[in-house]
Amino acid sequence: MDTVAAEKSGIGALTGPARQAARALATSTTARRNDALMAAAAALRARQAEILAANVQDVAASTASAAFRDRLTLNPARVEAMAKGLEEIAGLPDPLGHVLAEWTRPNGLLMRRVAVPIGVIGMIYESRPNVGADAAGLCIKSGNAVILRGGSESLHSARAIQTCIEDGLRAAGLPVACVQIAPDADRAHVGAMLTAVGAIDLIIPRGGKSLVERVLREARVPVLAHAEGLCHTYVHAAADPDMARRVLADAKMRRTGICGATETLLIDAAIAPSLLPLLVEDLSARGCAFVGDARAQAIVPGLPPATTQDFATEWLDAKLSIAVVDDVAAALAHIARYGSQHTEAIVTEDAAAAATFLNGTDSAVVMWNASTQFCDGGEFGFGAEIGIATGKLHARGPVGLQQLTTFRYEVRGNGQVRG
Amino acid sequence: MDTVAAEKSGIGALTGPARQAARALATSTTARRNDALMAAAAALRARQAEILAANVQDVAASTASAAFRDRLTLNPARVEAMAKGLEEIAGLPDPLGHVLAEWTRPNGLLMRRVAVPIGVIGMIYESRPNVGADAAGLCIKSGNAVILRGGSESLHSARAIQTCIEDGLRAAGLPVACVQIAPDADRAHVGAMLTAVGAIDLIIPRGGKSLVERVLREARVPVLAHAEGLCHTYVHAAADPDMARRVLADAKMRRTGICGATETLLIDAAIAPSLLPLLVEDLSARGCAFVGDARAQAIVPGLPPATTQDFATEWLDAKLSIAVVDDVAAALAHIARYGSQHTEAIVTEDAAAAATFLNGTDSAVVMWNASTQFCDGGEFGFGAEIGIATGKLHARGPVGLQQLTTFRYEVRGNGQVRG
Repeated sequence: MDTVAAEKSGIGALTGPARQAARALATSTTARRNDALMAAAAALRARQAEILAANVQDVAASTASAAFRDRLTLNPARVEAMAKGLEEIAGLPDPLGHVLAEWTRPNGLLMRRVAVPIGVIGMIYESRPNVGADAAGLCIKSGNAVILRGGSESLHSARAIQTCIEDGLRAAGLPVACVQIAPDADRAHVGAMLTAVGAIDLIIPRGGKSLVERVLREARVPVLAHAEGLCHTYVHAAADPDMARRVLADAKMRRTGICGATETLLIDAAIAPSLLPLLVEDLSARGCAFVGDARAQAIVPGLPPATTQDFATEWLDAKLSIAVVDDVAAALAHIARYGSQHTEAIVTEDAAAAATFLNGTDSAVVMWNASTQFCDGGEFGFGAEIGIATGKLHARGPVGLQQLTTFRYEVRGNGQVRG
Repeated sequence: MDTVAAEKSGIGALTGPARQAARALATSTTARRNDALMAAAAALRARQAEILAANVQDVAASTASAAFRDRLTLNPARVEAMAKGLEEIAGLPDPLGHVLAEWTRPNGLLMRRVAVPIGVIGMIYESRPNVGADAAGLCIKSGNAVILRGGSESLHSARAIQTCIEDGLRAAGLPVACVQIAPDADRAHVGAMLTAVGAIDLIIPRGGKSLVERVLREARVPVLAHAEGLCHTYVHAAADPDMARRVLADAKMRRTGICGATETLLIDAAIAPSLLPLLVEDLSARGCAFVGDARAQAIVPGLPPATTQDFATEWLDAKLSIAVVDDVAAALAHIARYGSQHTEAIVTEDAAAAATFLNGTDSAVVMWNASTQFCDGGEFGFGAEIGIATGKLHARGPVGLQQLTTFRYEVRGNGQVRG
């Protein structure tokens, strides 16, 4: 029913070939997939002038904000970075074919759980041309066909990059339909992709809040999405003060616009009088603004008040909410109330307190004595990442090659019947 | 937004306590969860008369079919089976807390991927009281709170069983809200559960096709569902004929109504003239009916014709579709066209053909020289199962305790910053 809808909308012209290409990819050798990536990287370099010319068209036609146009704009360094990205993915270990578990049943059946590709992935993103190249690389390597639906403002750039990816696939003897772009100028294809049950196996949205919310609201196909990253750093009574200052400064201010940036500081009442003024001073010196609860205001003169709405806000900016808490239980209660189950950190020298904290959140990533900004595929050692997942199923946290696979059970017998 | 909707509908009265109970369960000891299961089993035995009396009310009020009323009906043996089921779950290994992977980064961060509960599970099922008891047991053991929404015809029975589960939870010092029933008489709670994003983490439907289709259509919460099991057994040219006869008879006829039952026989043209008549004779003797393609009809006189619709039909009955194919590639093409990505088997003595087949399907379970009816949690060694999943993400195939968990990353440092 939904597959029929997909066919009618025009997306079916892409999903059929994508499924066939996915089958070819699933049984291809590691070398062949790597060859495609290396050849696509070479094509990106060889066709740099074409890509930049196409991008000039897109940028000239764009009426969007300066920040948006900056993300849309390519230059020789950004094209080179895309090519290097594909080469790095080629250098990563193959996530396919691994025997994840193996056991034998009393009746002699040999059971194996084996890593396999997911199938056909739909990638929906905004007008950042490099996202398409990265996604194509990660999907090829992990054996998945991908349909790329980038912002329509980047269509000329996307087509020029797509030509290079197709060059790479052809050079390696893989179907060009392993990577396709959904080329419509309006958003009809997005809706068709979101409802293409059976034709698309997984949707990955990447972009602003309104895009992700639309995808989560409308999708009938499973989604791996990044919703919100309202991360907390909790400075426990037994924290090393110097470490707390170093870790918080990085967690809040290294980059304020990423999902792993700390948005709220929780600090124990026992240590707050001596340490909180220093933390505020450190961050102020780096340009951070603050809001705090009444207990924090009593310690830091002039601290603006924090509302409950503030504690529920992902600032993505040089701003920090501060609450003074009594103990680990109170910190956990605050995180349970306001958190987004993304990444939380505790700073403490007390192993028991750390264990209680690590076990007590509902978050994908919990850190002890480290900056929340380590929530990143590269920092986890995954190599490249296609995004960060905030759901609880299949993949949580950074989504790298391994998270773009699923598994099948292979059962080997010698004529066993259940009887 | 959806959480607010859940609160307004009345489901919020259950999801809030469920979330709190889930937190208590997530940090509870194995012994405590097992104690709850053992005490609940004892309560089921102690309260057998109450349960049967409640069940008599339900059965007396039911106007449904005889088969439906049979599934609804409890007797002493069925109550005892529920109690034994809970004891068996208590005896299974704890799926929580396992370190699934562990590695150290060059900067000294120790990374761990640890098995944790999913959180709050919504179980939507039809009027089989034992499904509620099994689901409660599996969720308690795996550290998940569960909201049970059984068919309204079984409400008295469900309440009597619920009393026993609560007895068990209380005896072990766990919150009774670990297991709750959604007690409305109409289906409003079902819709509220399906859209309770953030309040319910996973929906598991268990029942007939229309129930599962409604859940898949309406759910905004992730779903682990069993859609269809259109399983194939492929008898390859190099099959041992005796093994093929034994395996097919079991795969088709052991139980015809289960999802792992074979619905279509694919047989190589090279072996069909000698073997197909014997296979048909074996199954005929056990009461099976047939439809076949033209090539099968040419070998088996009187075989009724199979339409393309027949090949797309999950019979769940003593009926088999038959197609003669040229080779492994043709068998795989047939499965790609008609299959439901559930379970497929090949019978062959040729290891290369088997490998091509195992790698060439898109199915959750692939078997070599074994009956498709082995697709079952117990047969996989998982102990009890809450169902079988036909999606491709998170869990595929039998869903046991391990599949009712997710993971978190625990990162241990000594003050690392990303810098």
